[in-house]
Formats: sequence, C-alpha cells, structure tokens
Amino acid sequence: MTRASVVGADMTTFGVHESTLSELFAEAALGAYDDAGVEPDEIDALYFGNAMGGQTENDTHLAPGVASQVGLAGVPCQRYEDACATSANAFKNAVEAVEAGIHDTVLVGGVERCTPETGLGTGEMTRIFASASDRHYEQPTGLTFPGVFALLTKRHMYEHGTTEEQLAHVAVKNHANGTRNPNAHFGKETTVEEVLDSPIVADPFHLMDCCPFSDGASAVIVTNDDRADSFDDPVDVSGVGHATDVVPLSAKPVPHATQAARDAAAQAYEQARTSADEMAFAEVHDCFTGAEVMASEAIGFFEDGEGGPAAAEGRSSMDGDRPINPSGGLKAKGHPIGATGTAQIVELTEQLRGDTGERQIDGAEKAVAHNLGGDAATTVVSVMEVRG
Amino acid sequence: MTRASVVGADMTTFGVHESTLSELFAEAALGAYDDAGVEPDEIDALYFGNAMGGQTENDTHLAPGVASQVGLAGVPCQRYEDACATSANAFKNAVEAVEAGIHDTVLVGGVERCTPETGLGTGEMTRIFASASDRHYEQPTGLTFPGVFALLTKRHMYEHGTTEEQLAHVAVKNHANGTRNPNAHFGKETTVEEVLDSPIVADPFHLMDCCPFSDGASAVIVTNDDRADSFDDPVDVSGVGHATDVVPLSAKPVPHATQAARDAAAQAYEQARTSADEMAFAEVHDCFTGAEVMASEAIGFFEDGEGGPAAAEGRSSMDGDRPINPSGGLKAKGHPIGATGTAQIVELTEQLRGDTGERQIDGAEKAVAHNLGGDAATTVVSVMEVRG
Repeated sequence: MTRASVVGADMTTFGVHESTLSELFAEAALGAYDDAGVEPDEIDALYFGNAMGGQTENDTHLAPGVASQVGLAGVPCQRYEDACATSANAFKNAVEAVEAGIHDTVLVGGVERCTPETGLGTGEMTRIFASASDRHYEQPTGLTFPGVFALLTKRHMYEHGTTEEQLAHVAVKNHANGTRNPNAHFGKETTVEEVLDSPIVADPFHLMDCCPFSDGASAVIVTNDDRADSFDDPVDVSGVGHATDVVPLSAKPVPHATQAARDAAAQAYEQARTSADEMAFAEVHDCFTGAEVMASEAIGFFEDGEGGPAAAEGRSSMDGDRPINPSGGLKAKGHPIGATGTAQIVELTEQLRGDTGERQIDGAEKAVAHNLGGDAATTVVSVMEVRG
Repeated sequence: MTRASVVGADMTTFGVHESTLSELFAEAALGAYDDAGVEPDEIDALYFGNAMGGQTENDTHLAPGVASQVGLAGVPCQRYEDACATSANAFKNAVEAVEAGIHDTVLVGGVERCTPETGLGTGEMTRIFASASDRHYEQPTGLTFPGVFALLTKRHMYEHGTTEEQLAHVAVKNHANGTRNPNAHFGKETTVEEVLDSPIVADPFHLMDCCPFSDGASAVIVTNDDRADSFDDPVDVSGVGHATDVVPLSAKPVPHATQAARDAAAQAYEQARTSADEMAFAEVHDCFTGAEVMASEAIGFFEDGEGGPAAAEGRSSMDGDRPINPSGGLKAKGHPIGATGTAQIVELTEQLRGDTGERQIDGAEKAVAHNLGGDAATTVVSVMEVRG
C-alpha cells in the first residue's frame, strides 16, 4: 500500500565541509529538485531537520532561512529536532501530511555540521551530543553517547554472549561497503584486528566501533500517490512507524531490546502489509557497532541473540542473505546528525531504482530504514518499495 | 467548520521558576489532563515545543523525556523549534494529524526557561535569542531582537506616522489586562509617561515597550470532531494558517507588512469561513509594542496605518470594539518562548468557555491567535470558536 512516494533524492558528501548550514542544505535540496525535475514553485512545504545548530553555531529557526535559499520563501516551514532521529521524524510528518492531502509535494531533509570546522573540538562536541541524553539522571554522571550504547551493548553481551569480535565484524563490513559509496566519510577498509587493536572509548567499544562526527546534508521530494506517476522513477513509501521508549536508560525494562525500534518496525511492516523477510536490505542506525547488532534483531532481520553471530558469519554483508547498511552506514558513510535520517531514505530510493552502481543490491524490491535518536528514546522505521 | 477541538488546557504561571524543563512542562500537561478529564492512556501522541533548551541547559531531545514524565512513554513524540512560533507550529501539526485521522487525541504544548535562574544573564540570553535571526546577514551586524522589531516599527512609523506615544498605549493596555491574569509575569499597571521615560533599548523602543524573559509552560489536549462531544466544554479549532516570509529582513519587499501574518491569517479565516470582523478578540504576538501594532493590521483588526491610533484611542482595550491581548499578551503575561504559542490557545479556550473571570470578553464566540517567530519569518494564525 502506497502512503506517499519519493520522487527526488540527493545528498552532499558526508565528511568535512566549510559551507554554512544553509549552503550545505541547499546543495542537497537543489540536487533533489534536479533529480525530481521540479521547480521550487511546485513545492508546497518544507519539513526540515537540524539537531544542534543552536549549540554549534548559534543558528536556530533555520527552516525559513534555508527555505529562502532554495526558492521556498512563503511556504509553511517547520524544524524538527529529535536527536539522531531528527530528519526521519521530519520525513514521517511529511509523509503523513502528503497522505492526508494537506500538501501535494514537499521538500524534506536535514543538515548538520559536527566536525572541528565548526570551531568546536571533540570534547565540546561530545558535550553537545550528550544534550540528547537525560539531563538530570544521565548527564550528571558523565555519561556520553559511547557510554549510552556501551551500557546497552554490555547487557546484550551478557544476555546473548555477543562478543567484541562479532562487533568488530560490523565495522569491517560497513567500512567495506563505504568504499563503494562516493559520498561516504570514510573510503577505506578495516580489519577485525585493526578494530580490536584500536583504543577503548567505552568498554566494549574501541575507537573503530564508533561512527565519526560528520558534516553533511540530505534531501528528498515527497509527493502523493496520484502525482507520483508524473515523475520519472518514483519509489513508494509504504510504511513509516514511529515510537518512543521510556527514558532514562535505567527505566527501560529490557534495555538491549531497544523497544521503540520493535514497536516502530511492527507499525511500518503492518502499514506496508509486509514483513522483515521480504526486505532486500536494511539501512540501520549503527552509531556504534553494538547499535547495529541490536537494530538488526529489533527490525526482525535476525532472532534475538543472533545479530552478533550473523555479522561474524557475513550474513549482513553485501553478498549475505540479509544485507545491512550497503551505504556504509553511519560507521563509514558518516553521521551528520540532522541529515542521517533522510540520507537513509536517499539510499533506499537509489537502491530501489537500481542506481547505486557497485554497491547495488541486485533486484531489490523492498527495503527498510531504521533511525534512532537519543538514549534509545525515539525510533522511526520506514519501508519503501519499487512502485507497483 | 471544525478541524479539531481543544478539550483540555492549562498553563503554569509565567515568571520565574526553579523547576527543570521537564517538571515545568509536566505541571502544565497534568493540568491539561485534569481539565479534559483524560488519563495518559487516552493520549496517542505528543507534539512538543521548546526553542532553546539545548543552548540554555544542554537539554535537547526533550520530547521523549517529558513524555516519560507525564505517562506517555511509548507514544510518538516530536519536538518543534520555530523560534517564538515554536508551540504554535506544534499545534498546527497536531491539528492536521488529528483532522487526518492519524491520531485521535494528542497532547500539545511547550516549555522554556529564560530567566537568570537558568544561570544565564541578560547578555548571554540576548545572544541566544538572536540565534533566531539570520546567522550570516543579521547576527554579524550586532542586530538582536529589539533591533529587529525596531527596524520594522521605524518603517511603520515612516510610512504611517505611528508615534511612540501610540506604542506606549499598547504597553499600558497590556499591563492593565495583565493585572487581571493570575498567571501573568507582571501584575502591575503602567502609564504612557512611565513607558516614555524608561530607558531606550532600541529606538523607538523603551524598556517598557519590550516583553520580559520568562519561564513557563503551556499545554492543550486536541481531539477529533467525533470525540469532542464526549468531553466537557470542547472549543473548536476552525482554522490554522501558517506561512513563512523571506529572510533576512533586507529581502522583504514591505518589511512592516509582516507578510507571513497576512498570508497565515487569510488561510485561517478561509478555513474557518469567517473574517476578522467576526472575531470577538485577538491574542497577538506583542514581543514589542510595535509588533502588536503591525499584527493588529496584518490580521485585519484595523486598516493599515490605523493600528497605532486605534491603540491610543482605546479601541483594542478590554472595553474597546476590537480587544487585543486580554491575557496581557507577551508584554505583561510574559514570553517563555516555546510556551507562548500554546499559551495563546489556552487563553482562547478559556475565554471561549467564559472562564476567565474579570478579564472575560463577554459573549465571545470566535477569537484569533497570532504567533510570530524569528525576523518576521514564521507566523501561525489560529481561529477558534464556541462549539456549535
């Protein structure tokens, strides 16, 4: 069942950029216009994601600013901030608005700058990132995001016997995939030994288990089912689930279950009248290797406890039976917070069109994206498919 | 025509609070539950507004956090940030979602802490506020928000002959109204002389032309038309318009027209099949006295150029023919950024129920709220009416 369609998609390279946030977003947005073959006057609204512009560059109320840069002054604009799930949340609300007939065709996307080119070093950026954890029960303990996901992953290891070697295989796979993505932050391969020999950041995570701070932007054009056929290469959005887990971490009954992901995936598959088994691949939120293992189980790609062994056995590799993160994922493609959610939608769109070259999942008909925000607080899961 | 209904409404006092952002929002949200007579398990989603928590308290991704505080862990949550129009934008999206059948009943609201109790002084808070102006063309000039609205107001004075005395009458009126609002930040009257004798902040604005920095929260429960009758005292939302003007200020063809307000008001009146003439009163975004004069014209209460004289003649006073800001407005009620939009909806709800005591607009059947964000960038205009 089609809820809406993506008819244009583009992203900047993820990595280091010196452009302003508005310029960076405009690069992705104008690329999406070109890809769709639309002019700005055909766009009815902007659903925009940015997580940290206020903290990093004293730049808020960005939605009208970027709208003015891309020919959309006048249309209703809204900015979403939902930590790392920021632009997936914008996408969800855009799909709902288009499906409901509130708008016909909208621009959705996000942007972030997180690298030292903002003038902020790793320490200060880590503090800013930590603003998405619980202000009163987590931040005062010194917990930052490597620690958040280390705690969840340690529990997964305790319950299921997941090992550091299995986690390292996730990094190796995603770096290998990233070498085939010209937009990826990292274009080099790594090895299990290199991951395990890299410095410990937060046990069990070594440096090479962690995604980088990146700059980048992504954008898609979403239109309604009736209009989709007037565009070249529409790709259908058949389900978008969204759930929020209880916070802080200490309140979660089964922390490593990442319950919001399970709830959001169930919603998305039900809306799309499909199941995990029919997905040709997934893009998941691998901010840390352990996060990919937990996500791969939460979205139903593997049974609980099988995510680690599956990664080690190559089942989630490009030539495995359940490919995950062909783009390279956050680990290798990079993670400009507010841009990550719609960048996953860009990857699904291009894969389902058959346009991703040497990282193409052959014959992909349906795929799923999983975008997580905060201390496993927010998850948006989207199912897309080749237009029937 | 009913798009959705407000069936519960509450706000904290606006002023100085030492509670955390989550605690402060919970006070308003639990009050709204009580007012509606709902339990948390009857709420399907949270549409939440906060503008500056990341900058003021390193507290972002607040929506899941506040949801967990008010019994809503699990439901889809989204945070909006659209400068001073933050929670009106959340309200717009909530009304659209309820009208479209995506959710039946939702919680909408916002919170902010801006007073020195956050640990930030006036200078630093002014810098943070300025993040909502244009980062590249306005901030580097030293422009802050008193200057933004001073520029617009100066142009209005040049075009229409509006005077500082007329502006002062807006402050006098709103302070008088605020003395009848137990939730208002300021509970004292002022005089034209006192306003004109107060220090210049940004010509033509004296200190007493400017709204304060406030702490506070507001929340409403929105449900669909079918369910509204099962609640006591529903108030209908018949129109919500939303538009975005070009930025920066220098790009606006007629700066003092506040074009987004005109566009948003036209949309709202059209949706509601009504006009300004039928509005019993308005709540408008009087961050500065000049902003109220411009808003009063943009929403059609007065002809262009008549806003200043009308204020001086008492036409917008409680006993005038076009009352504006019976709550005291931002000027006297206070302005906790992310809470202001839904606080206007709280005032409309309580007025249209006839529940506002000595500041009641007798026999009010329809009313309009105008919430503006940034450098006259975003405006949301909402029309509400007694349920037919």
